[in-house]
Amino acid sequence: MSKGRVLLAYSGGLDTSCILVWLIEQGYDVFAYMANVGQEEDFEAAKVKALTIGAKGVFIEDLRKEYVEELIFPSVQANAIYENVYLLGTSLARPVIARRQIQIAIREGCQFVSHGCTGKGNDQVRFELAYYALKPDIKVISPWRIPEFYERFPGRQSLLEYAAQKNIPVVQTTKAPWSTDGNIYHISYEAGVLEDPNATPPRDMWQLTVDPEDAPDTPERITIIFEKGVPVKVHNHNDGTTHTDSLELFLYLNTLARRNGIGRIDIVENRYIGIKSRGCYETPGGTILRAAHIDLEGLTLDREVRRLRDQFITPTWSNLLYNGQYFSPELQFIRPSLIASQESVNGEVKLKLYKGNVIIEGRKSDTSKLYDMEESSMDVQGGFSPVDSEGFIRIQSIRLKKWGIDNAEKP
Amino acid sequence: MSKGRVLLAYSGGLDTSCILVWLIEQGYDVFAYMANVGQEEDFEAAKVKALTIGAKGVFIEDLRKEYVEELIFPSVQANAIYENVYLLGTSLARPVIARRQIQIAIREGCQFVSHGCTGKGNDQVRFELAYYALKPDIKVISPWRIPEFYERFPGRQSLLEYAAQKNIPVVQTTKAPWSTDGNIYHISYEAGVLEDPNATPPRDMWQLTVDPEDAPDTPERITIIFEKGVPVKVHNHNDGTTHTDSLELFLYLNTLARRNGIGRIDIVENRYIGIKSRGCYETPGGTILRAAHIDLEGLTLDREVRRLRDQFITPTWSNLLYNGQYFSPELQFIRPSLIASQESVNGEVKLKLYKGNVIIEGRKSDTSKLYDMEESSMDVQGGFSPVDSEGFIRIQSIRLKKWGIDNAEKP
Amino acid sequence: MSKGRVLLAYSGGLDTSCILVWLIEQGYDVFAYMANVGQEEDFEAAKVKALTIGAKGVFIEDLRKEYVEELIFPSVQANAIYENVYLLGTSLARPVIARRQIQIAIREGCQFVSHGCTGKGNDQVRFELAYYALKPDIKVISPWRIPEFYERFPGRQSLLEYAAQKNIPVVQTTKAPWSTDGNIYHISYEAGVLEDPNATPPRDMWQLTVDPEDAPDTPERITIIFEKGVPVKVHNHNDGTTHTDSLELFLYLNTLARRNGIGRIDIVENRYIGIKSRGCYETPGGTILRAAHIDLEGLTLDREVRRLRDQFITPTWSNLLYNGQYFSPELQFIRPSLIASQESVNGEVKLKLYKGNVIIEGRKSDTSKLYDMEESSMDVQGGFSPVDSEGFIRIQSIRLKKWGIDNAEKP
Amino acid sequence: MSKGRVLLAYSGGLDTSCILVWLIEQGYDVFAYMANVGQEEDFEAAKVKALTIGAKGVFIEDLRKEYVEELIFPSVQANAIYENVYLLGTSLARPVIARRQIQIAIREGCQFVSHGCTGKGNDQVRFELAYYALKPDIKVISPWRIPEFYERFPGRQSLLEYAAQKNIPVVQTTKAPWSTDGNIYHISYEAGVLEDPNATPPRDMWQLTVDPEDAPDTPERITIIFEKGVPVKVHNHNDGTTHTDSLELFLYLNTLARRNGIGRIDIVENRYIGIKSRGCYETPGGTILRAAHIDLEGLTLDREVRRLRDQFITPTWSNLLYNGQYFSPELQFIRPSLIASQESVNGEVKLKLYKGNVIIEGRKSDTSKLYDMEESSMDVQGGFSPVDSEGFIRIQSIRLKKWGIDNAEKP
Repeated sequence: MSKGRVLLAYSGGLDTSCILVWLIEQGYDVFAYMANVGQEEDFEAAKVKALTIGAKGVFIEDLRKEYVEELIFPSVQANAIYENVYLLGTSLARPVIARRQIQIAIREGCQFVSHGCTGKGNDQVRFELAYYALKPDIKVISPWRIPEFYERFPGRQSLLEYAAQKNIPVVQTTKAPWSTDGNIYHISYEAGVLEDPNATPPRDMWQLTVDPEDAPDTPERITIIFEKGVPVKVHNHNDGTTHTDSLELFLYLNTLARRNGIGRIDIVENRYIGIKSRGCYETPGGTILRAAHIDLEGLTLDREVRRLRDQFITPTWSNLLYNGQYFSPELQFIRPSLIASQESVNGEVKLKLYKGNVIIEGRKSDTSKLYDMEESSMDVQGGFSPVDSEGFIRIQSIRLKKWGIDNAEKP
Repeated sequence: MSKGRVLLAYSGGLDTSCILVWLIEQGYDVFAYMANVGQEEDFEAAKVKALTIGAKGVFIEDLRKEYVEELIFPSVQANAIYENVYLLGTSLARPVIARRQIQIAIREGCQFVSHGCTGKGNDQVRFELAYYALKPDIKVISPWRIPEFYERFPGRQSLLEYAAQKNIPVVQTTKAPWSTDGNIYHISYEAGVLEDPNATPPRDMWQLTVDPEDAPDTPERITIIFEKGVPVKVHNHNDGTTHTDSLELFLYLNTLARRNGIGRIDIVENRYIGIKSRGCYETPGGTILRAAHIDLEGLTLDREVRRLRDQFITPTWSNLLYNGQYFSPELQFIRPSLIASQESVNGEVKLKLYKGNVIIEGRKSDTSKLYDMEESSMDVQGGFSPVDSEGFIRIQSIRLKKWGIDNAEKP
Repeated sequence: MSKGRVLLAYSGGLDTSCILVWLIEQGYDVFAYMANVGQEEDFEAAKVKALTIGAKGVFIEDLRKEYVEELIFPSVQANAIYENVYLLGTSLARPVIARRQIQIAIREGCQFVSHGCTGKGNDQVRFELAYYALKPDIKVISPWRIPEFYERFPGRQSLLEYAAQKNIPVVQTTKAPWSTDGNIYHISYEAGVLEDPNATPPRDMWQLTVDPEDAPDTPERITIIFEKGVPVKVHNHNDGTTHTDSLELFLYLNTLARRNGIGRIDIVENRYIGIKSRGCYETPGGTILRAAHIDLEGLTLDREVRRLRDQFITPTWSNLLYNGQYFSPELQFIRPSLIASQESVNGEVKLKLYKGNVIIEGRKSDTSKLYDMEESSMDVQGGFSPVDSEGFIRIQSIRLKKWGIDNAEKP
Repeated sequence: MSKGRVLLAYSGGLDTSCILVWLIEQGYDVFAYMANVGQEEDFEAAKVKALTIGAKGVFIEDLRKEYVEELIFPSVQANAIYENVYLLGTSLARPVIARRQIQIAIREGCQFVSHGCTGKGNDQVRFELAYYALKPDIKVISPWRIPEFYERFPGRQSLLEYAAQKNIPVVQTTKAPWSTDGNIYHISYEAGVLEDPNATPPRDMWQLTVDPEDAPDTPERITIIFEKGVPVKVHNHNDGTTHTDSLELFLYLNTLARRNGIGRIDIVENRYIGIKSRGCYETPGGTILRAAHIDLEGLTLDREVRRLRDQFITPTWSNLLYNGQYFSPELQFIRPSLIASQESVNGEVKLKLYKGNVIIEGRKSDTSKLYDMEESSMDVQGGFSPVDSEGFIRIQSIRLKKWGIDNAEKP
């Protein structure tokens, strides 16, 4: 008798194929779930493979548009970034993948969901906290945290042996000396030779972008138009093309960034579970969008809104996503203010893309009156009287003078 | 009879020369003060000019080393940045300039200090809040906020006429269509043709750095060594040179960055007085240092220290500097924790400089044990049991499950 | 010919009566505006007086309900407090007063608004920033900042002389040795004998509440019911009465608090302009509401929502109100998240009122499932396995162990 | 052969006595450790009991003074509070207890430490994170999280049976229908009948303080003197007594508060592990100190230091203590700024204690010049010109006017 139905997040690779078979071996009915978030993968081949090795069913879901619109663009609005550098490319894809998995589990009557994440990483947390928040009574099978599984498969070799024994087809490629995980927003490289933080990543590791040294010698110039902080149009001045559909536009920015060597980073970051790890990432289109959005906010966002948003919303949003808490009361709590902050972020930004650089060349907004050329002019006596500044400074100095009277830091 | 002694912050240019003479005209004894913070200026010529037009004395002060050590390096430690982009190059120089001015004013018995800042900008605030904090009873003369001065000199032409009439020597250069202000850390461009935020800065505006397009085709590789978050050595792998003195090292980083097209930005920012203005800046060496320092913190700083520092110290330090409140109780309050945060930031970072890019190629630390290659490894079962993650996730999910029970955001 | 129409915020007292006449003297047509925000005042007598001394018209507006619903209740939701102690009673009334003044000014074609605030206090800022935000081109006449006014009236005696000369009726009361300002939410006492921060306020100063020593020896017990953080019902268990209308309910809480000696404070606070000043305040009903609301949040608010709200919304809301920036982009920015935070704050709180104390005696919520008696029980093995805590602690300790290896703070 | 030496945190009660014997049964050599942090306990009787039932040694440590000076007073300086209400009484004692336990474990060659905390509470986390931070390789035995222990002892009855069987002396008291935990700073009550959050705590539960209704009808007046934010003297005006020693002074404040019914609270709080629980607490002396310290800061602390401290240090310090992370890099990081914030907090506060109320009656400081009676006076034209406020307000309004032009919130 079956122990129940499991919906397994399946990639078609060695690990999740072995897990699929192992789960069947444990007495479960296993269904495979593949989320298309833009990673490079042969979904049809994987489907055939899953069915071949025993899956009762396979569900392939194209989540790219909801990923772009619900996760990526709001993260652009939030200027989301983790530890000053990382654009959260892996983290952002997890909520949409986990949500659809739960939806299908419910629809298909699966009491269990399963995944192939390791027990040391962030992704196990991101998937499972999403599962539990969306369906508190779901049961999760995480083989890499089950002693009888991880002790049976202490390394790649034991998985290969199991695959051979169970007739699991294995693509005969030499494994790269690092792990990768990709989606429409980015690709990550970690583990293997990258574990030495002082080892420079090999030149041929980077998959998405050309090396800036190999990028074209001629810059490309584009304009990005934003409405309420969301990109709605990209115009390429070099070739005159324009893109407006959310997914297409984003894919096009990826194309532009990839050929101009834009979006590589290499960091040591702090995982949620308190371990430091080294990761290399490419986030091509996202890097352009971030630069453009930040620039447009300079023109269209009130100073205090910006300051408060930077201090509260940006890090909170970023940490919640990094730590797998997109489905949480606190994200629901901050989202309305994030949205409110972007009401005025309308306009366009001119950019030059050149060998790894995203260079701002100008910006304008037809709706925002916050920038006032006359008022900011040093040459024109407009807007307010210089005498006002006198009073402003005197009032601001009251407190400092009191302090200065006893101040240790005497000149 | 004299109205008293004024110590005027003097640049040798048209504005402050006219102010010098105007102050004499008003009945003051005027002394000129020139702070060398690394700007390109002929101090000796300016001195002669000041004396020629009536200054009772001239004081030229080399503040470059204290500027680097007291302001620039701590700002590197703080990862200081304003509105996501601006490295605070003008702001950082103000405290050392103002402090020496007050010191000399006290020494020379000047009851007044004066400066040539306009009534719309940040610098008037920065200078004067520093003056008042350091010497609460100082009297400040700010001609550009005195109606009888600014009404008499409504534009450059009236200053030129005044100069002609008063025998103030004027260098016959055509004025650039923007204003600049430089120091060892950066140069700024604003006003004039830059007031249209959509106008791309002319190619020949940038003075410090080469255009990335004109930078060498071959990257340069360097290593920067930090102790407690402060750079103490720069080694160039291409030519084998090494620099260790704080000022020299910083000048050398400037040289490297300038020839590789590093450090340009163009933003619309929010001034302290609530006006938006457009500025272009070059911060060559500072841009390299910021990237390297942030990277090393990834390796050597505890996650929670980093998070708290990022949320509290970085924006507070940056805003205080931007708004002219370096000499303030609140900066004295945050400084001890800034220093404490850097205790563990020891190690070195390998960098590649190439056409505007600062590319991290590796980092290491001999002292920090926070990064643990075995523990972070996905392949090795080291450090802790995967079963621990199970409990961690279950506990983290308790709160989210409760919320999920009523959560509107049903899957 | 008239210089234009002025709408003066008028109280009927000596100061604003003199201002009214002085404005007429300066050539303005003056209209008087009286906002009823619950202060004890004879509005009709003041109206007669205003007309008698030359006002072209008088507008009396009952703003109590909008004050309670738009300012007081949201401040309860925000747990608003300034410098740990002050419930912002004066600040909260300003936005509704200023807004109606601007509305009437527009309706009546007044180019000017005016008020009787001094040049050292917070209220001038609060009124005027509201004016300017709501009608950027409004012109403000602030007599106490106009040299020809304040030099003419250096003290109360000169105002009395002016009143006598101009036939302004003066009520012959001896002036209290302090200033007061009241509204439905609170009353303030400051200046005069209170300026010595070490002087204990005289027993007979306090107007709203009885001294706790004189309050009844028998406690009163009430229950307050909240919906989305807003009080919607108050039930008195001693006498069985119930109130549900927002204004009535709030007035009733005032009554209860006043007779039980609840809501007095005495502080030295920091004004917006950087001066410290001493104030004594009574906020009777507000003190009860704050205690009850905070308690109910313990039961119904998620931990992380609470933490983030406490750190970001509470101080931001409080400071914005204190500093007169209710009508501002940043308040618009934070309000949606404030509202979102209160979605789950539904339930009731039992309270005992006794001689200055507000004592919580219990709370419940029919809707929130966040509190789970079984799960929190130390005696019951419910909800999760103790073994989970093992993993949780082990994971939390990873980072601390790394730090402990080098930690200076050795045991 | 022994499995090794265990140092058990021992209370003399049923639970830890059973644990002691059970550990011996498991093959350990067990040493008992009792920390005197001011709880009411017969340490000598407990020592005899421990030895009787098999302990190889007993260590009783008086930690009261280091507890007061290292944890309580800094928490007063920080105005530490958890979720607006809880003064952290249990949390604060944990670091000193855990540290001494580790010190003794090292000295006595114990490889293991053990405690009797449950698997659902905060204390297990607080003890163990401290253990691991101070001695990363320590081994912890937490019986209430070990299935073979907690399954063997599912309730009090099974412990009593075990005690009978093992000749563990049991004091024949009827167990209170709640748990308590006390130290010099506070006592807690939770669990049992208190688990219904709507149940009013029984009158006879409260052990430390008299009911405010039973407190004296005559107030007591005292003055507390602070140096750098730390109380250094308490003077009772009623009886003329004075206390200056840190421990004595604190004990005396407890005495005062207890007889005047001060320091009771009743809350539902969020535990670190994400569970809500209800707790009742008495923090007598701490409640007085908090009120006095906050008041003195009004007089002596700069506004911006206070604002930043309130937003960053207070909640961070409080959360770290609550969550058991006193020994952590982040606490080391914030401590220097906490200390710096208190430099100016020197002076005295007059207080009236009356039936649960702590009423401020005045404060003064001989050293701080921040409060300036003349400057704050509404009556005196001192310190600065009202015209300065004009400029201040105009500058502050620039930003708001721009926003007002498009503002949706039209009057």
